Amino acid sequence: MELWYTENQTQNVNFSMKVKSHLYSAQSEFQKIDIIDTYEFGRVLVIDNWTMVTEKDEFIYHEMITHVALATNPEIKNVLVIGAGDGGTVRELTRYNNIENIDMVEIDELVVKASIEHLPFTSNKLSDPRVNLYFEDGIKFVKGKENLYDLIIVDSTDPIGPGEGLFTAEFYTDCYNALTEKGILINQCESPYYSHNAYEMKRSYKKLNNLFSICKAYQYHMPTYPSGHMIFCFASKVLDPIKDLDSEKWNELELETKYYNTELHKGAFSLPNYVIKLLNSEN
Amino acid sequence: MELWYTENQTQNVNFSMKVKSHLYSAQSEFQKIDIIDTYEFGRVLVIDNWTMVTEKDEFIYHEMITHVALATNPEIKNVLVIGAGDGGTVRELTRYNNIENIDMVEIDELVVKASIEHLPFTSNKLSDPRVNLYFEDGIKFVKGKENLYDLIIVDSTDPIGPGEGLFTAEFYTDCYNALTEKGILINQCESPYYSHNAYEMKRSYKKLNNLFSICKAYQYHMPTYPSGHMIFCFASKVLDPIKDLDSEKWNELELETKYYNTELHKGAFSLPNYVIKLLNSEN
Repeated sequence: MELWYTENQTQNVNFSMKVKSHLYSAQSEFQKIDIIDTYEFGRVLVIDNWTMVTEKDEFIYHEMITHVALATNPEIKNVLVIGAGDGGTVRELTRYNNIENIDMVEIDELVVKASIEHLPFTSNKLSDPRVNLYFEDGIKFVKGKENLYDLIIVDSTDPIGPGEGLFTAEFYTDCYNALTEKGILINQCESPYYSHNAYEMKRSYKKLNNLFSICKAYQYHMPTYPSGHMIFCFASKVLDPIKDLDSEKWNELELETKYYNTELHKGAFSLPNYVIKLLNSEN
Repeated sequence: MELWYTENQTQNVNFSMKVKSHLYSAQSEFQKIDIIDTYEFGRVLVIDNWTMVTEKDEFIYHEMITHVALATNPEIKNVLVIGAGDGGTVRELTRYNNIENIDMVEIDELVVKASIEHLPFTSNKLSDPRVNLYFEDGIKFVKGKENLYDLIIVDSTDPIGPGEGLFTAEFYTDCYNALTEKGILINQCESPYYSHNAYEMKRSYKKLNNLFSICKAYQYHMPTYPSGHMIFCFASKVLDPIKDLDSEKWNELELETKYYNTELHKGAFSLPNYVIKLLNSEN
């Protein structure tokens, strides 16, 4: 028997991967969680039939969601991560000795449990003594916090289901208040290519851009996400990801990375015209 | 009835698009040619079951294969295009008044005929008076030519079938000889992500790098090609695509582009570590 997992990237586009075995399946309070082993991509975490993480290319996503901020401000000490149940974002963060504390807030404990059991390649640093796990709603967690975090990473699923509230102006305002003066917010901002993703990209960017004095989108190549063309938003009260990039200091750390480097850091902020136009459009 | 076209991107990965209608199908002397109309991507040219051009994102490929060279040397006059039967590369080239002559050599006349009939969005400038169409083998066409072209664009299919000879050291040497002193070669160099594509990317890059004093790979986001992460190689005897980029002059032309801009030009040469490692690896 041939087993294939198909993601409906749009109503009219399917992406399918051949499956070795279906390792895990569970319905949590929030969502359907599946883990499969595939021929091309290794182990894959699927939530509500959307591909979240694959063993083959998770390094791209997790390096790009973390190192851009850490190379811009090498003095980040206190970090809040929202979502990121697979642990990959925390894994990259724990490589920095300057980071003293990581609060990770994941609404769905079952995602973390499944990842610890089946995805050791991302979850293997969740036991780092600097990591505090909270199984709570990130929206509530951040509310009322002031001048606390040097970095907030919103490593969310798409803005449907439990991730929806993570794309609102109210939530972003709470993040703004929770950040220190030099604080940085990194937000998963979808993709410019398919219209429903482009709509969400614009929505998030606009809200962040209204709130923060510096808000810049950067791109990365993520083959297993729809279109492969993905965007993160970098938002800050004072730090500019290009002008304040401290390449020398970051390179002195001698961290081995498979995707990120400080030249790519700069290049990633140079976006195609159609993406710039979308981000600046009124509607 | 639902009609879907599926591309087998690897043995274990399928990409499928929902089809409105199957507009054209023919077997030429060289290959199977199909044109379909799809819900998400508009009209799509498929050769031997590989996606060649889609109406939705062909602009990305055709802008990136042309404007990088033209912005590096604004004095390009004589151009050779090999392959490119859909006409999209020629369409972008005809936007430059400095270009006086374009020789386009496509081995398969039927691709051009089908494109003129069904893909007006790419083929609409093939009738430009500066364009000379040759339905010949590009490998033979370039052999023996010396110091003639300011730009050669190898807009090939994958290195299987009729495109195979376009990836050999002998062919690249003939191109080298056919180029003027400031000549530039732009070569379609596949993708770093799936192993069979990465193998071809390395092969092409190494051959060009051995031959030309300047050889640099640049990347672009092409959603309908496997992995969406695509590479062109820029090779030249004397011109460097970053140092010799004349941003001011190119921007004075006021060409409207949907993907390319001179900041993106610079950024596109900043590659991920895993791609750099592949390009520089011995095997």
